Amino acid sequence: MRNGTGLIIGVDLGGTKIHAAAVDENGTVLASERAKTLAEEGASAVIARIASVITAVTRTLGCTNTDIQAVCVGVPGGIDDATGVVDKAPNLGWQNVPLARLLGEALGGARVFLENDVRVAVLGEHAYGVGRGTRGMIGIFVGTGIGGGVIVHGKLQLGARGAAGEVGHVILDPKGPRCPCGKRGCAEAFASRTSMERDVLAYVARGKKSKIPKLLKKEGREHLTSSVVAKALDAGDKVMTKVFDRALRYVGILVANLVNVLDPEVVVIGGGLAERLGEKMVAPIREVAYKDFLLQRDREHVLILPTALKDSAAPMGAAFVARRRLTGQHTVGGELPASA
Amino acid sequence: MRNGTGLIIGVDLGGTKIHAAAVDENGTVLASERAKTLAEEGASAVIARIASVITAVTRTLGCTNTDIQAVCVGVPGGIDDATGVVDKAPNLGWQNVPLARLLGEALGGARVFLENDVRVAVLGEHAYGVGRGTRGMIGIFVGTGIGGGVIVHGKLQLGARGAAGEVGHVILDPKGPRCPCGKRGCAEAFASRTSMERDVLAYVARGKKSKIPKLLKKEGREHLTSSVVAKALDAGDKVMTKVFDRALRYVGILVANLVNVLDPEVVVIGGGLAERLGEKMVAPIREVAYKDFLLQRDREHVLILPTALKDSAAPMGAAFVARRRLTGQHTVGGELPASA
Repeated sequence: MRNGTGLIIGVDLGGTKIHAAAVDENGTVLASERAKTLAEEGASAVIARIASVITAVTRTLGCTNTDIQAVCVGVPGGIDDATGVVDKAPNLGWQNVPLARLLGEALGGARVFLENDVRVAVLGEHAYGVGRGTRGMIGIFVGTGIGGGVIVHGKLQLGARGAAGEVGHVILDPKGPRCPCGKRGCAEAFASRTSMERDVLAYVARGKKSKIPKLLKKEGREHLTSSVVAKALDAGDKVMTKVFDRALRYVGILVANLVNVLDPEVVVIGGGLAERLGEKMVAPIREVAYKDFLLQRDREHVLILPTALKDSAAPMGAAFVARRRLTGQHTVGGELPASA
Repeated sequence: MRNGTGLIIGVDLGGTKIHAAAVDENGTVLASERAKTLAEEGASAVIARIASVITAVTRTLGCTNTDIQAVCVGVPGGIDDATGVVDKAPNLGWQNVPLARLLGEALGGARVFLENDVRVAVLGEHAYGVGRGTRGMIGIFVGTGIGGGVIVHGKLQLGARGAAGEVGHVILDPKGPRCPCGKRGCAEAFASRTSMERDVLAYVARGKKSKIPKLLKKEGREHLTSSVVAKALDAGDKVMTKVFDRALRYVGILVANLVNVLDPEVVVIGGGLAERLGEKMVAPIREVAYKDFLLQRDREHVLILPTALKDSAAPMGAAFVARRRLTGQHTVGGELPASA
């Protein structure tokens, strides 16, 4: 047990990967472990796997699970932290899973909090990453969809119904492509990895040459991954470059729209692609926002930066949430009572 | 003098109209007066006119200007409240006018605060109007441009550089018409009264029949006014109806975008057109937002309402600001230090 206060563990429970980290009060990762989620094996197997990943972390630190003071799991779906139940997590195929209780039992009685995965990633970047010390931050995470959140007055904005932060569903052109949400022209419908895939395949179907089909086959992937995007860009693939540039243009417009309304100190671009590509992805977004879409007076004042914590943003944010909840402090603002 | 605390006067200084009101602590307007601004007569004449409008208000209440505890003026431009100077107000042709000092002297030594006109209108609706008691409110004011502001965590969001709330410059289609700000496809470029005028004139130039040119001539107006819009709509003018419906569709998209990011309790639509048309203007905006552009779960949960205070929003908000500043309380949140 460290400092007599016990370990705080943050977990990112993703559709493909479980990532757990012990994080100290300064945001230093003391130890971390990863494993595949293998959601198809069912909730019990996944929960056992989360417990074993956490156990590996505590062992690395020469501790046992009885040294854990609290765990917070970032869940890809809707959660009820008061009851500790995952209401619905489509990527996992979960409904009404009492994750907090089951994981707590598997860890020998540890206290377990739940929070949404995008929220913990935004909170992680704000507490320990690019947004550290700011009062206003916008997080945009580009993945299979586009998620994010807004920090206002130093707190994550929840909103009247807990529905704030849907930056991926800001409409950037009402005649744009159909979004999975049913609307047309959302940021997500232009710029998510899924949308990039759609556009690449449309070019290929029209006979344009691209390395993408071969790369997907070689990597044994059905869908466009960050790794495949990066390799195609590196190889100078024209279709991928064109699709990528267009997607980033729309992310730039999204950034400008949010900055015009909220005037934050910093915008952080995260998600798998930004983790891998960093400045290569964010520089064009910044240029588009500065040059074409921000009001003159705001240009070059707001910082637009790639994630500093990369795939540790979520487990670090989850650890931050666990630490705050233990002391009864709110990590979120807005109208909903923060679960403490 | 009322209640031994003195009168609090809020002033809306517009490009065409001065509107002053004495407002009590419950938001009741005790007396109000209006006059034309006649900005072309110069700053000194306008300031003398503001003083005489305020004097008329105090007289109506059986008081004199020595009974004034504080005045706040909502100014259509940039202000420095610390020095009491209007930095720049293009609609008035003002630059570096020490309004607080000059108006204070004209009133025999009254304390005068300054604030931006759109901000006081948003604060008025939040303190005493549609947003009363809410923690989250969005104000959208459709006039010659589109202004507004966002209330988050119960406070007006200022932002890192005081630039928050530019709802009129949210881009709704990057290939849209050019906006006065230089960008393309801002909400303002689709839906301001100026943009409606541009679209009506374009139809007329293409030979479409419309009553608008005749109405403008009859009312002696060079530009489309709220009154002319209302009359043309009442008369079933097809061009005006088409242009108006399209503009409201874009306001509906703007509402949805802001709600998806901020999840407020209420959205208030203000400005001259909304004051005059009320539900007739807001019902189509609400329908578009609910039906086509809000995420499913948010539909019919957020209230979208016309201004309750109409053209009293700004003077009432200004009075609210004066009252708060006297007691050192902040009316705004965000990163800038609120001038107290």
